[in-house]
Amino acid sequence: MTADDQPPPLPKLAVIAREAGVSVATVSKALNGRSDVSAQTRRLVAEVLERRGYPRQRLKPAKGSMVDVMLQGLDSPYALAILGGVEDAAWRLGVDLVVSAVVGRTKNGQPPPAWLDRISARDSAGVLLVRTSPTATQRAWLADQGIPSVIVDPRRKPPPGVSVVVSANLAGARTATEHLIGLGHERIAIVTGRPGVPCAAERVAGYRQAMAAAGLPVEPGWEVCGYFQNDSALRATRAMLAALPDPPSAVFACSDAMAVGVYQAIGEHGLRVPDDVSVIGFDDSWAAAHLTPGLTTVRQPWPELGAAALAALLSGETPARTELPTTLVHRASTAPPATL
Amino acid sequence: MTADDQPPPLPKLAVIAREAGVSVATVSKALNGRSDVSAQTRRLVAEVLERRGYPRQRLKPAKGSMVDVMLQGLDSPYALAILGGVEDAAWRLGVDLVVSAVVGRTKNGQPPPAWLDRISARDSAGVLLVRTSPTATQRAWLADQGIPSVIVDPRRKPPPGVSVVVSANLAGARTATEHLIGLGHERIAIVTGRPGVPCAAERVAGYRQAMAAAGLPVEPGWEVCGYFQNDSALRATRAMLAALPDPPSAVFACSDAMAVGVYQAIGEHGLRVPDDVSVIGFDDSWAAAHLTPGLTTVRQPWPELGAAALAALLSGETPARTELPTTLVHRASTAPPATL
Repeated sequence: MTADDQPPPLPKLAVIAREAGVSVATVSKALNGRSDVSAQTRRLVAEVLERRGYPRQRLKPAKGSMVDVMLQGLDSPYALAILGGVEDAAWRLGVDLVVSAVVGRTKNGQPPPAWLDRISARDSAGVLLVRTSPTATQRAWLADQGIPSVIVDPRRKPPPGVSVVVSANLAGARTATEHLIGLGHERIAIVTGRPGVPCAAERVAGYRQAMAAAGLPVEPGWEVCGYFQNDSALRATRAMLAALPDPPSAVFACSDAMAVGVYQAIGEHGLRVPDDVSVIGFDDSWAAAHLTPGLTTVRQPWPELGAAALAALLSGETPARTELPTTLVHRASTAPPATL
Repeated sequence: MTADDQPPPLPKLAVIAREAGVSVATVSKALNGRSDVSAQTRRLVAEVLERRGYPRQRLKPAKGSMVDVMLQGLDSPYALAILGGVEDAAWRLGVDLVVSAVVGRTKNGQPPPAWLDRISARDSAGVLLVRTSPTATQRAWLADQGIPSVIVDPRRKPPPGVSVVVSANLAGARTATEHLIGLGHERIAIVTGRPGVPCAAERVAGYRQAMAAAGLPVEPGWEVCGYFQNDSALRATRAMLAALPDPPSAVFACSDAMAVGVYQAIGEHGLRVPDDVSVIGFDDSWAAAHLTPGLTTVRQPWPELGAAALAALLSGETPARTELPTTLVHRASTAPPATL
């Protein structure tokens, strides 16, 4: 009777109520997003619907329900931009955000144990982690409680089955490299991020893909590690320029913060950006627009990452991986190579 | 029996319970900071203690209680730094933060009406407003509910009876001006912030006090308005330099963002910082450390403002005004005048 792409008709409220072990009135409230139904009860109802083939995302979050946001730290403009996107989406949904941060409270950079005590005292509709991951214990506890979680921009390989929302780092890095190749560059170096961080590896892969696709070699000494830090990038670029007989004509700095160090190393070496060496960054931070010359870079969609993570968290189905596209932002730090 | 500076002995639990209209067990829980007592009940108990001369601040916030943080916006590094301070203090107290923002949702820059609906659905132990103020209706409602509120860094004159936490803007501006005077400057201009914002007026007053105390005149044309904006400060400084027969030897930019515009105007006029004109800012933003030359400025204690606001909110007495001291941060943008 129903077309293949249509959900089956909603089962009778009494049937759902019996299977979920709650009253008909409670089922009705849960389906209508009423705030006087606990998140756990809502999940019970959602599970019954799911078992009967009814899509979970049709069950909207209750007005006044709460989502926990755990940030790695509150000291980064990126964290702020992600939080801004989450807040905007939450406001429109009528969901409240309980915000906390790891900020060096644990050695492993993961949320402190006390966090779960605090969540268990409330009725959390979901957990959104920014640049941090739950420990195995925390994941098990969240699963037991039926509390969904999503990680935005993970700093380590996410455990299997955990939902992540990320920028398209590989494609963005390919775009950055192709932009330099399009200007005529062939000798393109890369200053990479911290080993072990997924986005650092993805950006290196994007660079290598673009170089290979253009038939360009990556010479030994062209890939140096800047650990996502200004100072480390300065030292790595300084060492690269000192070691190479011929400097590269362009450098892809895998973050804007590292581009600041790359600029300085190029200046110290008696070269100019972009006349002698083009530089492209990644992030589109405040610094990118305020450096001299303005930094051409790849914009990460920070607020959109936050909004997408909240949507995934509350959809009832939490897809394994959501990638959002990046954008190339042209400024003054890239130009055709001088030898052309 | 008790010394004058000692609180009177705690009344018997039964007495407090009778006066507050609650059970002895509830009083005991409230006094012990147990989480299963509502904020309203805690306030009832606190009021009884207060009537009997017992200091309210002895009643600690319940573990797991929630404080609402309403920020003007999530797009400023200062908002982030304040929020970081609040979060750190809240974590140590075991208090959860529900974070939201105004961000253009209302014409008057004050929290939207839906905010109160959301607070009333929970049990808020207090409301901390960052760079925004409750409307008269919101203030009345909060007072009715017995929910305390504190404003951090208000953008308009706070209504009477409202608790505020601010930097010592007047003293900080006096310090900035005295630093320039100490270097030998006598012709000191000022680029002021947005009229109507309390801290803008306080910084002008600090500048004038320092000039008057040193017996220095403030010539017509030395006070120009930059509205706390980079672009407006650029235009105002450009116009000032064009209009004055003799440029000032130093400029006090009342925010670091405005100092960026001041730098640019000075450069356009063919002058150098600090060789021809010294510049001092206010805030100690990320930009201050990254400008060339590095900006000498007055540091606002952002995290400390947030922590102090939370402490005031939960103390049970919410002092009318808390001022925290600023710090002079020496960098490379100030030097003795060239004529010395």
